[in-house]
Amino acid sequence: MKTIVVDMMGSDNGVSATIDGVQQFFSRNNGAKLILVGDPLQLAPLKDQCEIIPSTDIVPMEAGAMDVMRLKNSSMLVAINTCIERQADAIVSAGSTGGFLSATTLKLKLIPGVERAALMSPFPTAIRGKKATVLDIGANNENTPTQIVQFAKMGSIFAKRIYNIDTPKIYLLSNGVEEKKGTPELKEAHQILKQLKYPGFMGNIEAREALNGEADVIVSGGFAGNIFLKGSEGILVLMNNLIKKAFKRNIFTKIGYLLSKKGFEDMKTSLNYKTYGGATLLGVDGVVVKAHGSSDGFSFSYALEVAFKMAEADVVTLIKEGLQDGANY
Amino acid sequence: MKTIVVDMMGSDNGVSATIDGVQQFFSRNNGAKLILVGDPLQLAPLKDQCEIIPSTDIVPMEAGAMDVMRLKNSSMLVAINTCIERQADAIVSAGSTGGFLSATTLKLKLIPGVERAALMSPFPTAIRGKKATVLDIGANNENTPTQIVQFAKMGSIFAKRIYNIDTPKIYLLSNGVEEKKGTPELKEAHQILKQLKYPGFMGNIEAREALNGEADVIVSGGFAGNIFLKGSEGILVLMNNLIKKAFKRNIFTKIGYLLSKKGFEDMKTSLNYKTYGGATLLGVDGVVVKAHGSSDGFSFSYALEVAFKMAEADVVTLIKEGLQDGANY
Repeated sequence: MKTIVVDMMGSDNGVSATIDGVQQFFSRNNGAKLILVGDPLQLAPLKDQCEIIPSTDIVPMEAGAMDVMRLKNSSMLVAINTCIERQADAIVSAGSTGGFLSATTLKLKLIPGVERAALMSPFPTAIRGKKATVLDIGANNENTPTQIVQFAKMGSIFAKRIYNIDTPKIYLLSNGVEEKKGTPELKEAHQILKQLKYPGFMGNIEAREALNGEADVIVSGGFAGNIFLKGSEGILVLMNNLIKKAFKRNIFTKIGYLLSKKGFEDMKTSLNYKTYGGATLLGVDGVVVKAHGSSDGFSFSYALEVAFKMAEADVVTLIKEGLQDGANY
Repeated sequence: MKTIVVDMMGSDNGVSATIDGVQQFFSRNNGAKLILVGDPLQLAPLKDQCEIIPSTDIVPMEAGAMDVMRLKNSSMLVAINTCIERQADAIVSAGSTGGFLSATTLKLKLIPGVERAALMSPFPTAIRGKKATVLDIGANNENTPTQIVQFAKMGSIFAKRIYNIDTPKIYLLSNGVEEKKGTPELKEAHQILKQLKYPGFMGNIEAREALNGEADVIVSGGFAGNIFLKGSEGILVLMNNLIKKAFKRNIFTKIGYLLSKKGFEDMKTSLNYKTYGGATLLGVDGVVVKAHGSSDGFSFSYALEVAFKMAEADVVTLIKEGLQDGANY
């Protein structure tokens, strides 16, 4: 049975969201034991199903790594420490991204040989139901070629084990498909992967085509990956607002909405980041899942599910092995 | 009267698109003289309105700078040479982006003091009718802090003169709003602009908020800017396809479409890149407008209009002056 430690206090929507998330998770999974960290009074509804470790301090959203380390009684730090002490299989938090990523990296440590951890998130693609694994979406500012190559390998192992893709197609996110395109680091990473004949490595892809469903794994340095993630989110928000306006235009468009609602609900589902459960920190010696800060119960339950799946598939061990195999770079 | 030299052969849609573009342009503007470069036979419909310089070779879309320089009889190179010989005010082409940008930079030369030219495109924002000026969207691979600062200044001058904004709000596109966020080059550019107290400089903006209507000018190195541009285009394509599917779902959604069509046409208009007329190369000693390769007549006419407006406002001279004023970096 896998054990997941859960920081219950980190969501912008309070414990009602995380409690709901745990309940939804249990309604779908009974193969995991959850250890909840948070205010015992507030978490009382779950006290019969889970062990509760008391902690009431909340890490502020803007907290950095050092702030978290100082907040010794915060639910986030207590959760990380519990994860280590109990040798749990995974940790989940919806709290401050920067704080959580830095603190888990510092405390759980990187997998030996991994130079940098990468933040990974699934993205929707033009092919219904197909997700693309994108990393690094922002754990780093700058990355060396070796780090980018490690991201490619870690992303591929994740996609293979979690999405059951035999040989995931890996692309480097660049400003042109030709191998001479991209930043110097990206060009060198391209050459390393090419010389390694790394399984599934397909070359470069431009941002416009990245989500057309062809790529399984999209690899980038942390800065460009963050621009790609947040730029995409920005356009989604922009278009959603325009769609709302389009339907609110007059009585005909309002009736039009009522008639086509079902179609748009489908669309919303396929773009719904909430079913993605948040982002995963790959490269750390443990399963680390960062749920969205604005998680609701549904979204939080999927973050727990991703953590559970990764623990079950033992992705961390697979990465340890995968980075060694033919790792002649 | 301003003179614009037009490469008529560069569009993927052939001369019918560029001829239509010229005609539409003339229907809105009569303050410009156009010199057309292309096949005189095909351009015959315009022979009474414009001077035609014969040239039939077309630069292939994948051509680089050196290829263009070798294609001495190509409409693109003949147009560039004509622009120089006739001391024309602007040049417009829908041909190979890489080839056109490099060849115009080489032949027209950079404005003295400008280190690198930047490719600039207007983006739609959440505020109806408001455009954001984004640069560099891909003329460069890597940029120094000084270059990024120059991009900020050039973008601001453009937005001020072409969109009539008193003091355009300038933001650096980064992975966090704090000034310590971003690549080393971006952080240094931030400090330079801050110390200069450059008018309108507001700090960093994240990609998610970049198009919320707050920023007038969004500044980035060429690599990240290209990811931002093409990532945005990719999501637009993805969502447009999903909207089509949503409406095609069944007979009700189809009726829904008919009823709400007007609203969606509005939305299409506000997102229609065709009214933006293409991208502008800022920093070159001349007005250089790159129309979309897939321009139709409507889109091409707007590329001509942007070139005309920039020539009328004498943006190049303003950049020359603007880069000197208080240019203590």
